[in-house]
Amino acid sequence: MVVLGIDPGYAIVGYGGIEFFNNKYHVLGYGAIETSAETPFNIRLEEIFNEMCGVIDRCKPDAVAIEKLYFQNNQKTAIDVAQARGVILLAAQLKRLPIYEYTPLQVKSAVTGYGKAKKEQVMEMTKRLLKLKEMPRLDDTADALAIAICHTQSNASPLRQFITSKGI
Amino acid sequence: MVVLGIDPGYAIVGYGGIEFFNNKYHVLGYGAIETSAETPFNIRLEEIFNEMCGVIDRCKPDAVAIEKLYFQNNQKTAIDVAQARGVILLAAQLKRLPIYEYTPLQVKSAVTGYGKAKKEQVMEMTKRLLKLKEMPRLDDTADALAIAICHTQSNASPLRQFITSKGI
Repeated sequence: MVVLGIDPGYAIVGYGGIEFFNNKYHVLGYGAIETSAETPFNIRLEEIFNEMCGVIDRCKPDAVAIEKLYFQNNQKTAIDVAQARGVILLAAQLKRLPIYEYTPLQVKSAVTGYGKAKKEQVMEMTKRLLKLKEMPRLDDTADALAIAICHTQSNASPLRQFITSKGI
Repeated sequence: MVVLGIDPGYAIVGYGGIEFFNNKYHVLGYGAIETSAETPFNIRLEEIFNEMCGVIDRCKPDAVAIEKLYFQNNQKTAIDVAQARGVILLAAQLKRLPIYEYTPLQVKSAVTGYGKAKKEQVMEMTKRLLKLKEMPRLDDTADALAIAICHTQSNASPLRQFITSKGI
């Protein structure tokens, strides 16, 4: 199973593609779509959409895993992140990919086994599980890889698979 | 000048196309894109995107005017409206249209001359200015027409045109 993890944003969209087979991980690639604050917002949305379509074409994932948006104090930032996230969801939907959403708590639990794990612990476990020599330059990219791991963990549970297949 | 006004949303996206020439309005058409609560959210986004592209193709506007998002108490609703709005902006951007944003206050001021006008007053003035026999079925559609009027009013100001053309 190939999973594309995405950490949504409008200045930086982190992404990471991983393959999970026989309980082993293989990293296909990772990076970030970055847009400039000097570019008009609608053009930033277009850049995100076009680049995300390109990432999906290169990664050829079976599924997309993306972080759920949570309450933020800065309403302006929250609105703009959500607008960018809509465009990312559209790119995945137009490519006919199943989309799964995970909360930060679910990602932390899946990667470290502990929902209140610190950022550094999540990073360290992501690095170990994926056998990375060094962490990606941007935290957003590392987060995207952790989100992808989270999806493989939730699918890897036989109970969960059973529940899903029975439609309960 | 042909303006397409849009009231963004995910359950209902109101839209209205008007032509403004020689200080007179001509309504080209109006309606709403409606998506079902039973449809998965990513598919609702795709429906909004595809239908919005169709509306733009039929309306052939010179500009798109869309309501700015403002703070809402319900964070979940605000996030979903913003995600849908991102997809609407993308549709306009991919069609290479200039996009203008207006706050509800700006719309009320432009249509009724009074920023604290009540909803009914805005509706009544919209109906009069556009010489509509009756108001559209949905408030969202009426709001979209008011947003389109707002754009023609702000452009119709010679001062504003002067400022714009001088790039000040």
